[in-house]
Amino acid sequence: MDFAPDAVSRDHTDRARAFLEGRVLPAEPVFEEQLAATPDEWTVRPVVRELQTAARAAGLWNLFLPGAHGGARPGVHGGAGLTNLQYAPVAEVTGWSPRLAPAAFNCAAPDTGNMEVLNDFGTPAQKERWLEPLLEARIRSAFCMTEPDVASSDATNIGTRIRRDGDHYVITGRKWWSTGAMNPDAAVFIVMGKTDPDAARHRQQSMILVPRETPGVRIVRPLTVFGYDDRDHGGHAEVAFEDVRVPAENLIAGEGDGFAIAQARLGPGRIHHCMRALGMGERALSLMVERASARHAFGRTLAEQGVVREWIAEARIQLEALRLLVLKTAWLMDTVGNKHAMTEIQAIKIAVPRAVQQIVDRAIQLHGGAGVSSDTPLAELYAGVRSLRIADGPDEVHLAGLGRAQLRA
Amino acid sequence: MDFAPDAVSRDHTDRARAFLEGRVLPAEPVFEEQLAATPDEWTVRPVVRELQTAARAAGLWNLFLPGAHGGARPGVHGGAGLTNLQYAPVAEVTGWSPRLAPAAFNCAAPDTGNMEVLNDFGTPAQKERWLEPLLEARIRSAFCMTEPDVASSDATNIGTRIRRDGDHYVITGRKWWSTGAMNPDAAVFIVMGKTDPDAARHRQQSMILVPRETPGVRIVRPLTVFGYDDRDHGGHAEVAFEDVRVPAENLIAGEGDGFAIAQARLGPGRIHHCMRALGMGERALSLMVERASARHAFGRTLAEQGVVREWIAEARIQLEALRLLVLKTAWLMDTVGNKHAMTEIQAIKIAVPRAVQQIVDRAIQLHGGAGVSSDTPLAELYAGVRSLRIADGPDEVHLAGLGRAQLRA
Amino acid sequence: MDFAPDAVSRDHTDRARAFLEGRVLPAEPVFEEQLAATPDEWTVRPVVRELQTAARAAGLWNLFLPGAHGGARPGVHGGAGLTNLQYAPVAEVTGWSPRLAPAAFNCAAPDTGNMEVLNDFGTPAQKERWLEPLLEARIRSAFCMTEPDVASSDATNIGTRIRRDGDHYVITGRKWWSTGAMNPDAAVFIVMGKTDPDAARHRQQSMILVPRETPGVRIVRPLTVFGYDDRDHGGHAEVAFEDVRVPAENLIAGEGDGFAIAQARLGPGRIHHCMRALGMGERALSLMVERASARHAFGRTLAEQGVVREWIAEARIQLEALRLLVLKTAWLMDTVGNKHAMTEIQAIKIAVPRAVQQIVDRAIQLHGGAGVSSDTPLAELYAGVRSLRIADGPDEVHLAGLGRAQLRA
Amino acid sequence: MDFAPDAVSRDHTDRARAFLEGRVLPAEPVFEEQLAATPDEWTVRPVVRELQTAARAAGLWNLFLPGAHGGARPGVHGGAGLTNLQYAPVAEVTGWSPRLAPAAFNCAAPDTGNMEVLNDFGTPAQKERWLEPLLEARIRSAFCMTEPDVASSDATNIGTRIRRDGDHYVITGRKWWSTGAMNPDAAVFIVMGKTDPDAARHRQQSMILVPRETPGVRIVRPLTVFGYDDRDHGGHAEVAFEDVRVPAENLIAGEGDGFAIAQARLGPGRIHHCMRALGMGERALSLMVERASARHAFGRTLAEQGVVREWIAEARIQLEALRLLVLKTAWLMDTVGNKHAMTEIQAIKIAVPRAVQQIVDRAIQLHGGAGVSSDTPLAELYAGVRSLRIADGPDEVHLAGLGRAQLRA
Repeated sequence: MDFAPDAVSRDHTDRARAFLEGRVLPAEPVFEEQLAATPDEWTVRPVVRELQTAARAAGLWNLFLPGAHGGARPGVHGGAGLTNLQYAPVAEVTGWSPRLAPAAFNCAAPDTGNMEVLNDFGTPAQKERWLEPLLEARIRSAFCMTEPDVASSDATNIGTRIRRDGDHYVITGRKWWSTGAMNPDAAVFIVMGKTDPDAARHRQQSMILVPRETPGVRIVRPLTVFGYDDRDHGGHAEVAFEDVRVPAENLIAGEGDGFAIAQARLGPGRIHHCMRALGMGERALSLMVERASARHAFGRTLAEQGVVREWIAEARIQLEALRLLVLKTAWLMDTVGNKHAMTEIQAIKIAVPRAVQQIVDRAIQLHGGAGVSSDTPLAELYAGVRSLRIADGPDEVHLAGLGRAQLRA
Repeated sequence: MDFAPDAVSRDHTDRARAFLEGRVLPAEPVFEEQLAATPDEWTVRPVVRELQTAARAAGLWNLFLPGAHGGARPGVHGGAGLTNLQYAPVAEVTGWSPRLAPAAFNCAAPDTGNMEVLNDFGTPAQKERWLEPLLEARIRSAFCMTEPDVASSDATNIGTRIRRDGDHYVITGRKWWSTGAMNPDAAVFIVMGKTDPDAARHRQQSMILVPRETPGVRIVRPLTVFGYDDRDHGGHAEVAFEDVRVPAENLIAGEGDGFAIAQARLGPGRIHHCMRALGMGERALSLMVERASARHAFGRTLAEQGVVREWIAEARIQLEALRLLVLKTAWLMDTVGNKHAMTEIQAIKIAVPRAVQQIVDRAIQLHGGAGVSSDTPLAELYAGVRSLRIADGPDEVHLAGLGRAQLRA
Repeated sequence: MDFAPDAVSRDHTDRARAFLEGRVLPAEPVFEEQLAATPDEWTVRPVVRELQTAARAAGLWNLFLPGAHGGARPGVHGGAGLTNLQYAPVAEVTGWSPRLAPAAFNCAAPDTGNMEVLNDFGTPAQKERWLEPLLEARIRSAFCMTEPDVASSDATNIGTRIRRDGDHYVITGRKWWSTGAMNPDAAVFIVMGKTDPDAARHRQQSMILVPRETPGVRIVRPLTVFGYDDRDHGGHAEVAFEDVRVPAENLIAGEGDGFAIAQARLGPGRIHHCMRALGMGERALSLMVERASARHAFGRTLAEQGVVREWIAEARIQLEALRLLVLKTAWLMDTVGNKHAMTEIQAIKIAVPRAVQQIVDRAIQLHGGAGVSSDTPLAELYAGVRSLRIADGPDEVHLAGLGRAQLRA
Repeated sequence: MDFAPDAVSRDHTDRARAFLEGRVLPAEPVFEEQLAATPDEWTVRPVVRELQTAARAAGLWNLFLPGAHGGARPGVHGGAGLTNLQYAPVAEVTGWSPRLAPAAFNCAAPDTGNMEVLNDFGTPAQKERWLEPLLEARIRSAFCMTEPDVASSDATNIGTRIRRDGDHYVITGRKWWSTGAMNPDAAVFIVMGKTDPDAARHRQQSMILVPRETPGVRIVRPLTVFGYDDRDHGGHAEVAFEDVRVPAENLIAGEGDGFAIAQARLGPGRIHHCMRALGMGERALSLMVERASARHAFGRTLAEQGVVREWIAEARIQLEALRLLVLKTAWLMDTVGNKHAMTEIQAIKIAVPRAVQQIVDRAIQLHGGAGVSSDTPLAELYAGVRSLRIADGPDEVHLAGLGRAQLRA
């Protein structure tokens, strides 16, 4: 057992950290200005484009694509072939500025997951048409899985139908929380639907590529998260698919493979979310420390009174313990595979967002009015991390699953 | 001891409840439409005006003004002369629809507090000019106390200066979280500042009336709460006072009375917030019950699995216990006065918002994506109740104060 | 609504408080000495007998028996005919010294519940033989309901059989947690068993009086609670009933009435436990306040550092809110009956012990080594209040029940 | 970074586990019988002696003594020269049966800490006289640090005096929580006292060896932890030192070195406690899983209802995350030294016992009456793990320290 990161990971992390401090954090106010100046747009703002160019030049590009499952070859598209364990601390760094850093490194959801799906399950033609421009950040993408009318954590509930019709498939259904889909640059949607409702429970679903411009694709409306429309990274859309017809070769892998692809996609997706969430927690803790030292009330700094020191200590303890659990999960994914890391993936999916939520909440409390406003990143961090407890299956579904696994063990 | 509400209270509560169900809840979608149609306005929307007319006709107007301290005479301006204890369940009803019901009944902060200040401390001329139109809802008002640069829970920190200059006072300073001030109908601001920084700790502050149109009053910007601008009730403004000159008769009570007036204002303000928060909690619980019964996953309703029943039970327990504590606090304010209810006021200020925050958070969790979006009132309720833990002094200041009081007892 | 206790209640509470302070608390060290001097005895110690004589003389005797359901007539056996609401604060006072005060006032479980059962359901002969000496504290009693082999919160699980055989019933089964049964003065056991396993779910059970000396009654062993054998009030026994034959007239009420009697007994039993638990919490808080002021570390009192003030404030808030819920429950039992107070009884059964458990736990923490030892009453209070979360049905059964009731409402 | 234990650690852990399951767990009921048969004795019981012989033969002896600081040479006294990281999972195994396994492996506090002190700071003569028989388990020892009258977490509070008098030191003071000291086999006490109250804050204290039989050493009384006297491993004593005269060569290291020795002793002591506590948590979780599957109520197993699955899942998550933090702390102690692992040692000292406390508490709740009694090990595990939150400095002192360190960082 050895808790020291290896040289490759340390090198990437150090460079990511330097980039964050030197380029990303200073760009935050610029980004705010650009957003304020173009309130009606859903596209990527110029400062993000500049950061992308700089990050790519700095060798901080597409690092999410793990070498372990034959993903990016080192040097290709900037991918470094990092293992999950090597990538984890880099992803954590990007969590410090979740609206800018992941996009700057081309490591932002949902594109990362979609690139992984294409990388692992796509045909050469699918890769050429969609994966290549995604790896170049020339286009963006969306993932259409969750539906408004059913509990989507139970995949058998999915109502969207994908029907074969000669050389085509016809898609009918309604999705929401299609993150990024408000962005007109999101050129392709990966849509989950049922090809065979009568098949075995986990063989009913398939995934298919739907170009944005296909007739019948209708962006119904943007959704908000605690008042935020997340317009900076393409928002979250409700999307209707009304007899949408695409060529049969747009299917990803085979009919009935949808559930398996989703599972393959969700494992890394969940761990990436957790890595970034740790960075969000570190940023909140860092703001808490700063505020506690700088702010005075009743003749003393906040750090010198009441529960503030305890909050800071508790945050440090939580972040240290959960970081190790995330890293071990990454290591398991690298060494024994995602399937055998299921308990650990569920554990971090439950434990990390909720711990970070509490840390951010306390940081907000310590900042008073500034904490709930846009004068600090805290309220927006809160909305983001709070949503993680719902996205990719609510905590309670994972808790019950993890509990059942223990009972069987 | 008797836990049955009296006939007057029951009658008002029943009518308020009927009005809520018959008029207010059906008006919520109308209100959303009107807000969406006029995204740039900060004024009261037409549907609110209609509700106000109806509520006034229904005898549900200005009920917040307690008879106990000689406030509204029954029949005048619709005031019923209710005690705090009688008013409490009425206020709770308005919490079910916090954006519409309090405004409909002319019982919305910060106007209520401002009306109380004018009622209790105003000169006849001040009452005629500002209290009368407020009681009629012909104008709105703002309360300018919190400052961006200091911990305002410590009143000695206040930096705004109110300097006597002949027959005038000149006000210089910067305030924020001036709720309602973005609304151009907010015709008058009650401003807290220091007239004598060398006086005893709690005699340095004074309050003064500043008409919105006075030269030197500058609305700097609106603030957001999480992502909400609360535009529907006038938002929250940062306001600069740059050598603002008002007649000396605009001072409320005497020089040095500011802290005492603030205390007098905050007692009822805090209990009103708690009463409404209970209603917010009841609405969240009611949505939780509904969702748990209606939603299916893995072959059963949500109510039949995992922790859902426990969440519902815990919410019921919390609301029942805390409601009684709020009612007892109201009773103490009525019978022995606000000063002798200080421990209880602090207790509910701490306990109610945080309990309701948890209830709303769990209701959000149970609603998944719908919970964080605008498809339910939950995310906005969350932002509102979360802010209460900061407004009027953060929880931790009250906890420390309450703790000290116990140690002295 | 009125939160002031009436004169009768206040008078009894004041006298109980004076008795506690003047007689009971000073008797605690004497009691410890008597226990240490007779380590093998399970009987009532002499100091308790003296307190009983004094309490009876002071008119503080059998106050638990409510006048509401025709119980003790004022003056008879010292009973004052108090309502539950009037009795509640008296019971709270006894919680300050749970090993001495309830026994001193002849208000200790399980005798109280057994006296209520006999009072409400007993025949004149049963009352004469068992109720009279219990009201005089000449004998003690036990209640044999819980069984070691099954989840006894589900009454259909009960395995003990009560079979009619001519003019007798024959009892076979095994019980545990028969509180008080180690005391040889516990002259009678009320035993719950099934007379008809084929009857409707809640008509299978009956209750029967079993004199201790009946052949076949075998005290198997004493049980401990966190290492305590609770020998001072008769301990907790495992009891085997091996073909125990008693006259048919020993049945309480009719065959099949057992479940209903148990429910009738448990309502008041649970509220009495909660009332006393509040007193336990107040004592722990009082010890906490004292310690925080008296103890120094790192140059300041404990009260002046860290989370101590917050713990004290939180304890005060919890106790105030939950006391009101207990009082309202008592009021409901008095005014609309136990059945219609079911939600509230469940609520306090869940909420009070767990809140008091946390208060006691924090008081222990503040006392360090003294807290877990016998140098303060805290560790023993902890064991007592912790057990309440299991006794009379575990929290989780009540939470689920309360949740279901909300879902139906 | 690598999360796989090395071969040496795995081998020792596997053998420890086999010994636990094959020898220790089956010996638990035997141990109970021997305790019940000799209620007045404080000495090691025969079954422990037998286990010690078997463990030593199995190469599971004195494993706690780390090779890292030149401790036991492999092969000597059975010590294996394990690093902290290698020893950690072995210690965890012993936590499954904390009354038998640590003693069986000669790895029980306080002897382990005392052996470390002698090993690291003792003179050859001190080692020969006391360390050798301790490594052979021929004698036992006690550590006398905590005092009844002061907050001992602040070392400057210590009241015991150690005065030089010619060739002797004379010790005067009163200690308590001297674990093991009730055992007549505890032949030597390591006593902390002040040699120079006027020296710098952390140079006032010294440690000295006091043979049990020295005149003036008086065992005042045993202390209980909740209701347990922990007689099986020598209990916890209050000890008076009344002009106790020992030769000057009994001083450990030099005058003024006491604080430094205590710190050196506490680091490993705290991590050993945390390792064992994880094993206690695992045992509780294992009992919870077993009970949840075996017990039925309301027609289903406990696992199939309410919050039980969630409790089990939460326990698993906590144990996984905290184990990693403990292991990382061990690794830091091995690689950069105890001083540089201070933040992590504080973190686990705070986080592990309290998490395990909650797991044990829930296991108790799931077992109902059996949980609080001696029919399961749970209540005794609870008392043990609860005490850890007080021993070696209460949580709050460590929280404040950890918080301050973050604020300085």
